[in-house]
Amino acid sequence: MSINLDKYGFIKRDTPRDINLDPLQTGGILTPEARQALQEWGDGYSVCDYCGGSLDQIKTPPIFDFVHKALPEFLGTDQARITNGAREAKFAVMHSMCKEGDWIVMDGNAHYSSLVAAQRARLNIKLVAKSPAPEYLITPEKYLEAIEEVKHSTGKSPALAMLTYPDGNYGNLANVKEISKLVHEDGIPFLVNGAYAIGRMPFNGKELGADFVSGSGHKSMAASGPIGVLGVSEQYAPRVLEKSKTHKAKELELLGCTARGATIMTMLASFPAVYERTKPEHWQREVEDARWFSSQFESLGLTQLGDKPHNHDLMFFEGMRFYDISQKIDRYFLYRELKARSIHGIKPGLTKNFKISTLGVGREKLGVVIDAFKEILNKYQ
Amino acid sequence: MSINLDKYGFIKRDTPRDINLDPLQTGGILTPEARQALQEWGDGYSVCDYCGGSLDQIKTPPIFDFVHKALPEFLGTDQARITNGAREAKFAVMHSMCKEGDWIVMDGNAHYSSLVAAQRARLNIKLVAKSPAPEYLITPEKYLEAIEEVKHSTGKSPALAMLTYPDGNYGNLANVKEISKLVHEDGIPFLVNGAYAIGRMPFNGKELGADFVSGSGHKSMAASGPIGVLGVSEQYAPRVLEKSKTHKAKELELLGCTARGATIMTMLASFPAVYERTKPEHWQREVEDARWFSSQFESLGLTQLGDKPHNHDLMFFEGMRFYDISQKIDRYFLYRELKARSIHGIKPGLTKNFKISTLGVGREKLGVVIDAFKEILNKYQ
Repeated sequence: MSINLDKYGFIKRDTPRDINLDPLQTGGILTPEARQALQEWGDGYSVCDYCGGSLDQIKTPPIFDFVHKALPEFLGTDQARITNGAREAKFAVMHSMCKEGDWIVMDGNAHYSSLVAAQRARLNIKLVAKSPAPEYLITPEKYLEAIEEVKHSTGKSPALAMLTYPDGNYGNLANVKEISKLVHEDGIPFLVNGAYAIGRMPFNGKELGADFVSGSGHKSMAASGPIGVLGVSEQYAPRVLEKSKTHKAKELELLGCTARGATIMTMLASFPAVYERTKPEHWQREVEDARWFSSQFESLGLTQLGDKPHNHDLMFFEGMRFYDISQKIDRYFLYRELKARSIHGIKPGLTKNFKISTLGVGREKLGVVIDAFKEILNKYQ
Repeated sequence: MSINLDKYGFIKRDTPRDINLDPLQTGGILTPEARQALQEWGDGYSVCDYCGGSLDQIKTPPIFDFVHKALPEFLGTDQARITNGAREAKFAVMHSMCKEGDWIVMDGNAHYSSLVAAQRARLNIKLVAKSPAPEYLITPEKYLEAIEEVKHSTGKSPALAMLTYPDGNYGNLANVKEISKLVHEDGIPFLVNGAYAIGRMPFNGKELGADFVSGSGHKSMAASGPIGVLGVSEQYAPRVLEKSKTHKAKELELLGCTARGATIMTMLASFPAVYERTKPEHWQREVEDARWFSSQFESLGLTQLGDKPHNHDLMFFEGMRFYDISQKIDRYFLYRELKARSIHGIKPGLTKNFKISTLGVGREKLGVVIDAFKEILNKYQ
């Protein structure tokens, strides 16, 4: 037997992170309630004690109330379900709404998992062109163009349209209401991927014109993943949430059951805090923090790309001054300097282009980050 | 806003469970190391700090070593991957190996999720007949019959064959080697669903003749779910693990990434203990405990269905004496009496037919259960 068992067992997580700017992580940091829930519900199948065959129907703990009352209202959709993640929610919509070989139109800023989900569903993908640097905007005009091109080349409308709101690269919030309007004028069902919106900012699927929404628990709802949420309109629910003919309680696209145990219970545990932070007055403060951070960063010679003034905590920066230093010193100098200051979130080796998130960090710690970047510049210039 | 936030936040889990016989739960109870790992890695995306684009390639923590070295050897397969659960592993195999409308042959004891996965993949299902009560055996002869029937009615071999080993109802271990042999004689790829085997008992996919295996982390590997494992032979790996043409690090059937965070880290944390318990000498003791429990239970007038003598910790019982009492008292009397004794695992309301698992409970506590059933019988008769 050649397995080296010493490698496994309990493993420490040793990255310092007094300040965390990682866009993947800021919205997923567990609340104290979620940390408690982890221990309480960590065992496999912990929520299944009173399950009659459907996760969403479990009354104790109150998963039924969460899925059928709180979540549809929170998402602004008629129906809601729990999935294993945003990408699994997107695939469920694509797989149930489309046939193999159908066309899907999606924004050119879409997350890779949207493309991979469409490829897994064996769809043809038409990307909506984004505007050139430095803004990378997705406009309704370009959506229309993409749809027209599909119609022209295939003779029919795309089977589905998708928008990433905001996208995960630039944190751009496209004009979703205009886009949903023109998509619907062609009778095309419309999916809004809100993995970076739902749980961070005010969000209402119906107001945006979405027929489906996907969200991420571990990305933006302070839940221990993998877990996601899916919202569906009454019109399309029978198709997306179709039940098995042989097992009448089981929904096909969810394979009968999804995120049970610690994942759903941490989502429930964090929900009051997540609900609170998405209120307009709190989100407005987050947006102001992001804008302040962006202006401070730009005063150091970095450039923020994407929407400006910015409307989201996720931002993309170009750091040519730091890149120039990395060419003289080594490419890891910035990572090393930040790590020494317990500032986490910019990937090792990046200087020229990187993204960060200011969500929940607060003005004081953001000031510490700005000071750190000043110090590092002074040290190496 | 009508959401009642008071329902959420931290919720206690109040079922007493000094002794746990729940077949869903005995193999998923976390080890102390996994409980530690939960707290350490509970945040969303905790394992992604050093990720270059593929979960299975992460060197720190040692996910790469686990997925590419330990797991293939543990499963007895050429390749292995982490999935969101056994059902997701099965769907990945079905979806990649079959076209819509193809036929799959599976045992008549298959878990509902196998049928639902095949239905989601839009396959036709041919069930292998099981022998009548009380044994419910799946025999190679009946497998052959099912395959022949598909060939007869469609003119070609099924696209895939699947066996549940053991099944989740009776804990029956079919003659998998014989079945794999005859399946392969017809050139049919063979999937073994080992959700109740992998992590509990000695298991080697190649020795069993499996081209694919699926296992469950939260069911049988003491991991906080949802998480599963997928094993694939070299022959079929290019198809099941096909990568995206646009995103070369991302595997289509895994949608690019699966169980990250606490789920994979609790699996790593429990792995040394799980590896230990699957050694033949430990498993033999579990089988002896199960057989002893079965004989004690039968001496109280219950009947064990399925393989006899039994070869697995999961057992199905018929409890007519308890059913008769429930008709006079009320259907919840047994659940109530067991709950008062902190014995968990028989679903509320069941008396006539129920399943239990003796895995890891130990002879002493199993004796407490036997005594409890005796007391309850005496009390009500």
